Amino acid sequence: MKIEVLTVGDEILSGNIVDTNFAWIGDYLWSHGYELHVHSSVGDDPEPITKAINLAASRSQVVIVTGGLGPTIDDITIETASKAFGMPQVLFPEALEKIKARFEKLNRPMAANNEKQARLPEGSTVIPNDNGTAPGCHIAFQNTHFFFLPGVPREMKKMCEDYVFPKIKELSPVKTEFCQKVLRCFGMTESAMDRELASVDLTDVDLAFRIFFPEILLKISARGSDLNKVQKRVHEVEAFVRDRLGDVIYGEGEEMLPQWVGRVLTERGESLSVAESCTGGLLASLITDVPGSSKYFKEGVVTYSNESKQDLLAVPSEVLKNHGAVSAETAIAMAEGLRKRAGTTYALSMTGIAGPDGGSPDKPVGTVHIALSSPSGTQERKLFFPASREWFKRLVAFSSLDILRKHLIH
Amino acid sequence: MKIEVLTVGDEILSGNIVDTNFAWIGDYLWSHGYELHVHSSVGDDPEPITKAINLAASRSQVVIVTGGLGPTIDDITIETASKAFGMPQVLFPEALEKIKARFEKLNRPMAANNEKQARLPEGSTVIPNDNGTAPGCHIAFQNTHFFFLPGVPREMKKMCEDYVFPKIKELSPVKTEFCQKVLRCFGMTESAMDRELASVDLTDVDLAFRIFFPEILLKISARGSDLNKVQKRVHEVEAFVRDRLGDVIYGEGEEMLPQWVGRVLTERGESLSVAESCTGGLLASLITDVPGSSKYFKEGVVTYSNESKQDLLAVPSEVLKNHGAVSAETAIAMAEGLRKRAGTTYALSMTGIAGPDGGSPDKPVGTVHIALSSPSGTQERKLFFPASREWFKRLVAFSSLDILRKHLIH
Repeated sequence: MKIEVLTVGDEILSGNIVDTNFAWIGDYLWSHGYELHVHSSVGDDPEPITKAINLAASRSQVVIVTGGLGPTIDDITIETASKAFGMPQVLFPEALEKIKARFEKLNRPMAANNEKQARLPEGSTVIPNDNGTAPGCHIAFQNTHFFFLPGVPREMKKMCEDYVFPKIKELSPVKTEFCQKVLRCFGMTESAMDRELASVDLTDVDLAFRIFFPEILLKISARGSDLNKVQKRVHEVEAFVRDRLGDVIYGEGEEMLPQWVGRVLTERGESLSVAESCTGGLLASLITDVPGSSKYFKEGVVTYSNESKQDLLAVPSEVLKNHGAVSAETAIAMAEGLRKRAGTTYALSMTGIAGPDGGSPDKPVGTVHIALSSPSGTQERKLFFPASREWFKRLVAFSSLDILRKHLIH
Repeated sequence: MKIEVLTVGDEILSGNIVDTNFAWIGDYLWSHGYELHVHSSVGDDPEPITKAINLAASRSQVVIVTGGLGPTIDDITIETASKAFGMPQVLFPEALEKIKARFEKLNRPMAANNEKQARLPEGSTVIPNDNGTAPGCHIAFQNTHFFFLPGVPREMKKMCEDYVFPKIKELSPVKTEFCQKVLRCFGMTESAMDRELASVDLTDVDLAFRIFFPEILLKISARGSDLNKVQKRVHEVEAFVRDRLGDVIYGEGEEMLPQWVGRVLTERGESLSVAESCTGGLLASLITDVPGSSKYFKEGVVTYSNESKQDLLAVPSEVLKNHGAVSAETAIAMAEGLRKRAGTTYALSMTGIAGPDGGSPDKPVGTVHIALSSPSGTQERKLFFPASREWFKRLVAFSSLDILRKHLIH
């Protein structure tokens, strides 16, 4: 079955919005045994919309159209489609009732132009929208099923999950079996991984890299008629990858590194504090993005000046004077000073030069020292990330969590 | 002139990568007086690529094709295009030399399959790639100019700026004048702004909202044959918008709120420290994303426990006991305690309930108290953001900066 996505909206073509809807739809379809064969975007103009609809009808069996269902005069997708299909627009009373009810719930008067959203092509099926005013609709035209959805991601996604995807399954049940495994990695570049995995046998298996900087996800997937065979191939490739990459793989599925660390600390009933300099609070922010982090995360300090390193972390002034703020000795003193005061099981510290200024021949921009203080002592590591300020901060924050992770697993 | 973008790559259609290239191209063209009339994406398959190329040739005068120029067997864009155009692929020695030179510079041997990247359609013009191995090429086919570029954003952008955009200008000089103004806003929702600006006269002017959550950018733009008229209309709409939105508009152009605050503090020679609870380090991280922030940002503390609020900020235990950690009194004590110890001109503090758990009928999830301590005293504000944990953190961090901004301008 050929499935296509058509995005409508001037804001997409003029670059005002990056279209993430179609990547989300493509990802869902791919991991459920279907494939998108083409995606197009056109502006809010009758002529290109009409052409795109006719082209889609001629080459696809399923067309998911997003955008242009709002109440304003710019929103002309339904009107244009009705004309293209030769189906008059009529008022759907049940759709109008739902729009009215939504405004009542929000305690706001319904504007007259919202009524327009309930006028859909005659003979279509309403797709309810639980998260917004614009109802969607499903129209069978010639041999093609068109699904019209709003462009707001939250609304579009819910309507896909509740109506469009089940309908696609009904129209063409997947006969092929599908198996997928996602391995989460940190600490190796994509090209180094590529070299390490060069000899992998990819017969009947797909191996894709997906980067959530600075993490890299490896997606191993396979399809076929025999579920046992499909699973066997995925497991074989997984075993090969695990053998080659070792503890670069820290987890599976959806669990990011800060969540992994949080889960393990919670299980062990242990606690953490962090002393940041060059990461400027990013590490604490990543840790506290995890719901429930207050159970194990006690405090963070961002010591951007020498005074604050002395005041808050009791770093001796001689250490700062003799070795400088960016040094192994300062990192160690920060971690040990924090752990002692905060009374946590672990304390992480990092001090470095994020740039773009502040480097020297001895300590160029990108230099960082990370220390971990634990009940068994303090370790320190020097790393070098000559990257943009923003990337440097992310690399250092994740590297710190990775040093703690390796301590926790060994 | 009709301009189209065609993206080639399985990783796009399967949702493994969100295509940001075409939004970038669309934005550039839009703000230089051109328009994209359609964008499509197809996978790495000869049939859909051929169809897309023929379709593009029939409907557009300029086609920018990105992706599929790599050295692997999956990369078939050039091979497929050569066949579609009926032009044999030939070796371009100057392109090969550049690829070889690049590998030499990286001190790595050139793989045999990289030679393939120098085989381009006969009669095409090489588009040099300064940031990668894959050269691009420019081909005039029938009445359409095709530009083939790699999908790697850094490479694609440089080649657009150096070759494709100048060539487009050469092919069709813009006769219309263009004027644009970007106003940056914080503190009002998009729909509230929409209502506030409902009566604006948009004759010959375009007004677009662009959301960089939680900031909202208003882009006012106009085109026409008379530069004076075009500028006049943009200025008229700007005046209307400024009158309606007042100090919701904090700046112009590219300067985000943390940069605005940093610039003004630097100009005044003043300093800042922050005491965070529910934002968990995000505010410090946003502040330290700005290069040069060490000039005015002295320290941050993330006090996630009552003990750390007492230890680091000298919040009296009676305040915590009588009013709770999430209260006006605690926020004020945090800001005053920090300002006293850190010795900075200003100290910001915030304490709230990010959720998803921890709320109560009195203090539901989304409640936050923000305090600003300054030489002229301490002010406190209670706000309520019933949003996801991540959005809550961003809203509170930006609201804190905005409270400081309003103090600085009044």
